[in-house]
Amino acid sequence: MQKIIARWSVLILAIISTNVIAQNKSGESVLFTTSISEDATPAVLARIMVADKEPISEIKFEKGTYHFYPDKAYERFTRISNHDDVMAKTALPLLGFKNLTIDGQGSTFIYHGRMIPFLIEGSEDITVQNVTIDWAMPFHSEGTIVANDEKNNTFDIHFSDEYPYEIRNEQLIFLKEYYEHDLGQSILYDPKREAIAFDTESYTSITTVRNLKVQHNVDKIKYKYKVDPRSKAEKVRGKENNLKVVEIEPGTVRIYNHRKKLPPVGMIMVCKGDQSLNRLAPAFRITGTDGFNANNVTVHHAGGMGLIAENSSDLILDGFHVKPSHGRMVSTSADATHFVGCRGKVVLKNCTFNNQLDDATNVHGTYQEVIDVLGDNSIGVRMGHAQQQGFAIGKVNDTIGLVDLQKSFFGYDHLTLKSITPINGRYQIITFNENLPSTLKVGDLIENLEGYPDLLVQNCNISRNRARGLLISNPKKTLIENNFFSTEMEAILVPVESSHWFESGNAANLIIRNNTFQDSQHSGFDRGVIRFVTDDDNNNIAFKNIRIIDNEFNQFDNMILEISNVDGLLFEGNTITNSGTFPMLHPDNPAIKVKASKNIVFKKNEYKGKAKNILETDDSLPKLKFR
Amino acid sequence: MQKIIARWSVLILAIISTNVIAQNKSGESVLFTTSISEDATPAVLARIMVADKEPISEIKFEKGTYHFYPDKAYERFTRISNHDDVMAKTALPLLGFKNLTIDGQGSTFIYHGRMIPFLIEGSEDITVQNVTIDWAMPFHSEGTIVANDEKNNTFDIHFSDEYPYEIRNEQLIFLKEYYEHDLGQSILYDPKREAIAFDTESYTSITTVRNLKVQHNVDKIKYKYKVDPRSKAEKVRGKENNLKVVEIEPGTVRIYNHRKKLPPVGMIMVCKGDQSLNRLAPAFRITGTDGFNANNVTVHHAGGMGLIAENSSDLILDGFHVKPSHGRMVSTSADATHFVGCRGKVVLKNCTFNNQLDDATNVHGTYQEVIDVLGDNSIGVRMGHAQQQGFAIGKVNDTIGLVDLQKSFFGYDHLTLKSITPINGRYQIITFNENLPSTLKVGDLIENLEGYPDLLVQNCNISRNRARGLLISNPKKTLIENNFFSTEMEAILVPVESSHWFESGNAANLIIRNNTFQDSQHSGFDRGVIRFVTDDDNNNIAFKNIRIIDNEFNQFDNMILEISNVDGLLFEGNTITNSGTFPMLHPDNPAIKVKASKNIVFKKNEYKGKAKNILETDDSLPKLKFR
Repeated sequence: MQKIIARWSVLILAIISTNVIAQNKSGESVLFTTSISEDATPAVLARIMVADKEPISEIKFEKGTYHFYPDKAYERFTRISNHDDVMAKTALPLLGFKNLTIDGQGSTFIYHGRMIPFLIEGSEDITVQNVTIDWAMPFHSEGTIVANDEKNNTFDIHFSDEYPYEIRNEQLIFLKEYYEHDLGQSILYDPKREAIAFDTESYTSITTVRNLKVQHNVDKIKYKYKVDPRSKAEKVRGKENNLKVVEIEPGTVRIYNHRKKLPPVGMIMVCKGDQSLNRLAPAFRITGTDGFNANNVTVHHAGGMGLIAENSSDLILDGFHVKPSHGRMVSTSADATHFVGCRGKVVLKNCTFNNQLDDATNVHGTYQEVIDVLGDNSIGVRMGHAQQQGFAIGKVNDTIGLVDLQKSFFGYDHLTLKSITPINGRYQIITFNENLPSTLKVGDLIENLEGYPDLLVQNCNISRNRARGLLISNPKKTLIENNFFSTEMEAILVPVESSHWFESGNAANLIIRNNTFQDSQHSGFDRGVIRFVTDDDNNNIAFKNIRIIDNEFNQFDNMILEISNVDGLLFEGNTITNSGTFPMLHPDNPAIKVKASKNIVFKKNEYKGKAKNILETDDSLPKLKFR
Repeated sequence: MQKIIARWSVLILAIISTNVIAQNKSGESVLFTTSISEDATPAVLARIMVADKEPISEIKFEKGTYHFYPDKAYERFTRISNHDDVMAKTALPLLGFKNLTIDGQGSTFIYHGRMIPFLIEGSEDITVQNVTIDWAMPFHSEGTIVANDEKNNTFDIHFSDEYPYEIRNEQLIFLKEYYEHDLGQSILYDPKREAIAFDTESYTSITTVRNLKVQHNVDKIKYKYKVDPRSKAEKVRGKENNLKVVEIEPGTVRIYNHRKKLPPVGMIMVCKGDQSLNRLAPAFRITGTDGFNANNVTVHHAGGMGLIAENSSDLILDGFHVKPSHGRMVSTSADATHFVGCRGKVVLKNCTFNNQLDDATNVHGTYQEVIDVLGDNSIGVRMGHAQQQGFAIGKVNDTIGLVDLQKSFFGYDHLTLKSITPINGRYQIITFNENLPSTLKVGDLIENLEGYPDLLVQNCNISRNRARGLLISNPKKTLIENNFFSTEMEAILVPVESSHWFESGNAANLIIRNNTFQDSQHSGFDRGVIRFVTDDDNNNIAFKNIRIIDNEFNQFDNMILEISNVDGLLFEGNTITNSGTFPMLHPDNPAIKVKASKNIVFKKNEYKGKAKNILETDDSLPKLKFR
């Protein structure tokens, strides 16, 4: 780009102004008043953009309600892990900032359309406090089931004025400011409990897609390289819309061709559009940042996650509250929080993670697949998932593990990182300080062995949401204590998986203590409240040094704990009762299943549940006893 | 981003490697052999990426056929004028190169999927020669009309094995490598003439879209600022698919619900998908580059334009041949060439511009709309068209005209450019060296008065394509001589328009001489072969100093020339005959229409055509005579 600098200097001046907003010195305290509230974007952005010359240490907002529109917002193409690649639009591009506090002083920020309220990159010691984030129109839609008809296999949904729609060729499209979505991913909420409906898996998702019938010569399209069948381009092939939607009166539509049980009258159908299109406006995007604090922050909604952090360290969320507004069932449309490749401390304390449409948190690294051996110390790697495109696996000199998951969940060797050259979203060239071992082969995975945190989840309320509570893929150290869980799927899921999400990290040194688990897995899956699982079906050890102590499980169904591929687990001092909240869905289940594990100890637990067999084990521990 | 440099140095190393590939010194000559032909991308890219350390003066290819795949290609989000914003993938990111020649030595480069063969930015003195560019699977599709049925209002199209498809909910989708398109924009080709079918406007476009019937509460969505009804997000609202497509035997589909006349059997239906999705892979993208030569280059296809140049100077195309391969009707899916904001010399000589689906060339600047007055010397401007997002209007110190098109086609004042700060694709802040005049107001337009070239179009064959031959919005100097034209619409269109494309430039100093015009406007429009037009309906002068001399018009229909809003036009020494090639479509037309003009002179022309009135004028020149 040097020639552009020389000869097209206007262009470059622009690039400097907007892409390199660095601010390193202590600076002034800026106060915005409600005079900018109709569209706060231009004024806030204008101040941010001169911060390299006029440093800022603090930005305060007079208490009030501020609207932020995208029309005059800073924009940049941005890849965000576990989100879609987006043209990020923000009033707060905190790129290269240091020692900055943003204090809403109790203000509410209302966003319009596809914006990212806080875009924090390459920064240090950023604090955001005393602010509430919401959207004028949510990225999802909610309607009440008002009728169903077994004979004709239809059901009717009524949408309030908050959810404008149109019907295109029998398909329901929800129209928003600068955005739209179809039914896509859907689930039922129970308005009485303001939580995911009991047994919703019998009714949802709505079956929006089916295989189509007419294809011609499609087998003549040959790809030279592996393609991702879940990519936007590929996933639509061979599929067509399954549903037929007809408006029966203004605001009420009838759905034909649903293939699961008809949703019960009175439940709320929540829908957020297609999976590959609906994660585009997280409330906080943090990457390459060391030191981030959120204190007394409420996120009522986001079109994606409440907070997604990548390759950052020392992230402290104290009083970070994800919960819905305006009587809606749903808060954020994806995870409340999510941490990828983060290190140092990650703390979630005194938080609320309610009603979001995915996990409360997910802490993991990233696997990348070796597809080329390019030289003595250089490989070409492929990003397995479309929402990991462009991800940088680490920093210079980080220790990178080489993994063959068929053989072991732990690396067979390691190297240290010299450089990453991103060629495109899916492909990077990685160079190491050392020569490659002869054992390295195409098809192996790499993971960063340092990109994991000391994780604390403490005094949090994790409930009323779709999916899991905590997804823990953290081999360093995790303490989960004094939390309340009531989640649709697992309260705590501890996985190793590579085949779909390519999320790395074999949990170890995990303590789960003094928590209350209330009626998780109520959507109908036959799974434990706490579950260790690998998606490679073998008996290798994946998880080590786990302690589950002094918890209370008050569960409507039998299954509490699934242990698989674990070496060293102490389950002590826990109390297990049957809540009677819902009918049991899997009454023949034991309370605990163990397979392919060793050094599992049960001590001083109290079982007051209804399982006929408390403990079921495989050949790995035939003599194990529940105590 | 400075913090990222310090603490996430791996990331930055990557950015340096791929975004700033500068090469300024004279360097080595590199030869690639056919050993890399199966996928030449990684080897070519690897050499390009080290050119900052190991300079290259020449890249030669052993004569052969080279395939280029996107999987390991350099990728970057790229805004391209008159194209869709794309994730550009290329093996040849010539960013900041100087004095480089790429010589195919007669080779053919075959591209797979969404790639840009030559991505040339911020460079100087680049030459590309002796190479043929084609795609393995084209971005458009062609099928033969094999039947039509007036009674049921259907017609049948047969597609060869080259065009795999599937039918989704009665909609025809053409599947390609890494891409797909629907019917979208369509037109008929006549296989006997290998040109756009006579009177195709009676049959096409196929009416793929209609207004939908059910909308609810859509009026509750209020936008604070102007939105573009043609943007991707907005254009789909209120519309649904109109056609029903059924496969009647493998490879042959029946189309229902067409609203124009049924296409005649034997014609070729060419379709390229939706207008806002189908311009994503031009063969040459050139921007911010001073000095570009293409010699003996053939472009058989591109998913967009053959060559799109922006903000560049001294572009010489000698023997640049756009023409189809493999018996296809279509070459590039958009314009053969296109020049926006280019200056110095632009030369098209000894070129072929055949069978492309848009103009042979279009030379213009860009209007931007003033939407904010931000200070003494600063304004906020809006890009009117989605395919102009991010466009930089000029360089430091360029003279920028201030225009109120309602009052005059010429600026009422001018300023000189100090800086551009792009905020987002649609919005920029522009600062001038001088204070704004008090006459400047929101709603006015700005244009760069220097961003126009000395244009020469010489010895070119411009025929068999959709749309115009030359679209000239160039106030500097244009010479069009010794060319052959046979185009579906105007051979030469000279417009001023602001309301849709926001393409600036009032043509002046235009010489059209010694050309042959053969049967243009044969698709059915009631327009002249050469046409001056403004889309603001007033009598102001827009065009000056035009000479149309010594040309031959051999036209099946009457209308040769439409003159509007011109001051100074000499029409001399031209011969006009009737070709008899097609039936006349508008037999009552005169040969020449003149309105709102002055200083128009006809001399020594020979009229052998069939018009009853050769010349029709309005009140501006009641006594004008054809001679």
